[in-house]
Amino acid sequence: MEHLIKNLEELLRLAEGSEDREAAELALTAASEAIRDVLPDKVVKRSISLREDKLVVRGVYESSEIDLSRYDRIWVFGCGKASGLMASALEDILGDRIAGGLVLVLEGTEDRIRTSLVEVMGASHPLPGDKSVRGAEAIVKQLKRLGERDLVLFLVSGGGSALMTLPREGVELEDIVEVTRQLLKAGADIRELNAVRKHLSAVKGGWLARYAYPATVVSMIVSDVVGDRLDTIASGPTAPDGTTFRDALEVLERYRLLNKVSSRVRRMLEAGASGAIPETPKPGDPLFRKVKNIIVCNNASALETAARVAEKRGARAVVLGSYIEGEAREVGKVLASIGRAAAHSKVPAEPPVLVVAGGETTVTVKGEGRGGRNQELTLAASLKIRGEVGVVVCSIGTDGVDGDTDAAGAIAYGNTAERGMLMGIDPQEALDRNDSYGFFSRVGGLVFTGPTLTNVNDIMLVSVVRNAFN
Amino acid sequence: MEHLIKNLEELLRLAEGSEDREAAELALTAASEAIRDVLPDKVVKRSISLREDKLVVRGVYESSEIDLSRYDRIWVFGCGKASGLMASALEDILGDRIAGGLVLVLEGTEDRIRTSLVEVMGASHPLPGDKSVRGAEAIVKQLKRLGERDLVLFLVSGGGSALMTLPREGVELEDIVEVTRQLLKAGADIRELNAVRKHLSAVKGGWLARYAYPATVVSMIVSDVVGDRLDTIASGPTAPDGTTFRDALEVLERYRLLNKVSSRVRRMLEAGASGAIPETPKPGDPLFRKVKNIIVCNNASALETAARVAEKRGARAVVLGSYIEGEAREVGKVLASIGRAAAHSKVPAEPPVLVVAGGETTVTVKGEGRGGRNQELTLAASLKIRGEVGVVVCSIGTDGVDGDTDAAGAIAYGNTAERGMLMGIDPQEALDRNDSYGFFSRVGGLVFTGPTLTNVNDIMLVSVVRNAFN
Repeated sequence: MEHLIKNLEELLRLAEGSEDREAAELALTAASEAIRDVLPDKVVKRSISLREDKLVVRGVYESSEIDLSRYDRIWVFGCGKASGLMASALEDILGDRIAGGLVLVLEGTEDRIRTSLVEVMGASHPLPGDKSVRGAEAIVKQLKRLGERDLVLFLVSGGGSALMTLPREGVELEDIVEVTRQLLKAGADIRELNAVRKHLSAVKGGWLARYAYPATVVSMIVSDVVGDRLDTIASGPTAPDGTTFRDALEVLERYRLLNKVSSRVRRMLEAGASGAIPETPKPGDPLFRKVKNIIVCNNASALETAARVAEKRGARAVVLGSYIEGEAREVGKVLASIGRAAAHSKVPAEPPVLVVAGGETTVTVKGEGRGGRNQELTLAASLKIRGEVGVVVCSIGTDGVDGDTDAAGAIAYGNTAERGMLMGIDPQEALDRNDSYGFFSRVGGLVFTGPTLTNVNDIMLVSVVRNAFN
Repeated sequence: MEHLIKNLEELLRLAEGSEDREAAELALTAASEAIRDVLPDKVVKRSISLREDKLVVRGVYESSEIDLSRYDRIWVFGCGKASGLMASALEDILGDRIAGGLVLVLEGTEDRIRTSLVEVMGASHPLPGDKSVRGAEAIVKQLKRLGERDLVLFLVSGGGSALMTLPREGVELEDIVEVTRQLLKAGADIRELNAVRKHLSAVKGGWLARYAYPATVVSMIVSDVVGDRLDTIASGPTAPDGTTFRDALEVLERYRLLNKVSSRVRRMLEAGASGAIPETPKPGDPLFRKVKNIIVCNNASALETAARVAEKRGARAVVLGSYIEGEAREVGKVLASIGRAAAHSKVPAEPPVLVVAGGETTVTVKGEGRGGRNQELTLAASLKIRGEVGVVVCSIGTDGVDGDTDAAGAIAYGNTAERGMLMGIDPQEALDRNDSYGFFSRVGGLVFTGPTLTNVNDIMLVSVVRNAFN
């Protein structure tokens, strides 16, 4: 099977000896297989089965069986980086049972998607643009026409929030972009950000499900959010919204932004809080009886594959779960610490062992360098595993794009820090300047996959093949 | 058995329900037992056995059998917070086979130590004072008198570096204090710090072993250093020194301190580098054939006990090892993440589970608040386990003293952050101000043990008793 990591051989040549090489092979192969298993077409083919009129959608948390005889038409809509390849896989399974549809994907990736029934439109990301709006309008228009005997398979994945954007009547796209920027700068978290954005949007926060009513909606969701909250992934277009206009106003008050946002934003939120315009669809709304939100794949799915690969290769697997958050460099230190423990004291397990973790770290940028959270995590880890033999740390974004770089992530050996020093590239100094890309591009260790068109966050692996205790 | 945690009942009353309570009981009991097992007298009694003339010292990594018939006299010397209680336990085992000796302990703790043959002297910590020097002089003087048929049991533990201090002839105590301060401020790490300090000292870096020669020295070491490096614990008084005068000078050059340190310091290091005065004893020096350095207990020992307690109570134990380092608040987030994974996705193990980790985190102080690394770790974790049921995070310094506070550490429940908010004490804001003590002292959660007189760094526990997935 072709390795998803394009520069595998080059990375293995960085190994100091056979133990390093073995450790790296374990980590990189596990990473490659883990990502392959969450590629959009694989996910759809694994989670969907069709026997006569019974369509089963198997999710991570729950499954749904749909009796197709109750519907005249099946539509495929969606938004997100993975939605195009998912639509294409659905066509393979459902063929011309699909009446039509439209998915909004990342601009420039359209030519990698082959569909004949479902239209594919590119839009911009991470900042929404005109095409995001035109795409959203087209989807809304089509959904509004549907009736009780229509079934919508809605494909949701990371990036969907930007790729499908429709300002509520009364605010402009630029208002939403600006308030998002202000909130991020003020330090608002994703929940606060979403509370505001959903109440300025005509599609997020469950609105799409409302337009589709009385059609049945089954959302197939690839989660790129730690904790898999349905109302957070792509801002929850088909999920009930637990937040209110009042909450949105409170967020702006908390960050003292109420007088800094555009007057249109303020007017809309105040109108909503006073009950003058309708709220987003709320939990318990009868419309959601017609909606199933099914997470078909998440970070944990990828970690399971990585663990399975390790075990198949005779190593132990220790899975730390998909909830890893924190400053990238500090998470890197902790993971390196666990690797050192395995090497020197046989916990959490005796080598060979693959420690598998996932989630989404953050980088507090202080320097002028280039990098991404996976590369920064790995660079920090390289300092902690310095001198170890048969220990590697590897962190990779499953979307294949780490930060503003062309790398998916990086791998560090016990000799990586030393190699940098010998080349006159101080790893600590590179870290201080947030220049993990600069470091690894010269010293070696960048992992390249190219954009994978899927995203279940990051996978972080520590591979230990040697028992330094003995 | 008496609980080492003095305010156990009060801490359990903070639980929201029976699952919280169960989780807290598991964590706090494991912590209490883990610390009890590394108390100095316990450690000595566990690691020493005497049958007729055979004295066996069992260490974590290696053991040593000593034929007492080859010696006329047994001496007990030592330095460190644990050395007093260790000496007392040795007297219980060896009785009047001990000829005499002297241990240097923390000032104010002398009255907790009952010895009749070994003298106990208090000295100051963390900054060395006159008593540290007088104590060191007394030990050196006695060691220099010993001959081939003398056996020295040297008791080393955390704090020993300050409690036993002797400037090399030509530098003053104030020089060492000042250069230490300058190096710490400049961001030097412990290895760099020690390279300099050992070369200004007449006792660190193996010098004590040299004075004792030709007597046999068996050092019994309680490690408070991540990685258990013999040359780092208490600055390695009986361990060979791999660093040189040249290294010490390079450290000062690296931090541009060569012109800022006292002229005495500079002169001494330059004299040493030019070979004018003797180096510290080096690895391979024949004198070390007469020396055994045995780590009798370390952080891993405590973690093993915690894991055993969990298993005895029917819970799974996942040990992440003793190498945990990193910024306390970020380590707290990672540990909370792993707890959430256990609660929601049954990895690394299905609840009930106790995740056990240890090491030494750091706190980058930015605010004016009070706290310690264990409390700060726990406060950060409280924000990540907010709303969870049956999940607690607990971090405790095994010495019973966290930072500049009277608490040993803290425990956080799923309701801790909320409880703070309801009382008008914002946990995030407290964290921003490094005011973990201020937060927990008002909201509840400080763990009190009092000074334990031992130190094997910190233990960090995440206890998960509920499976939120089902």
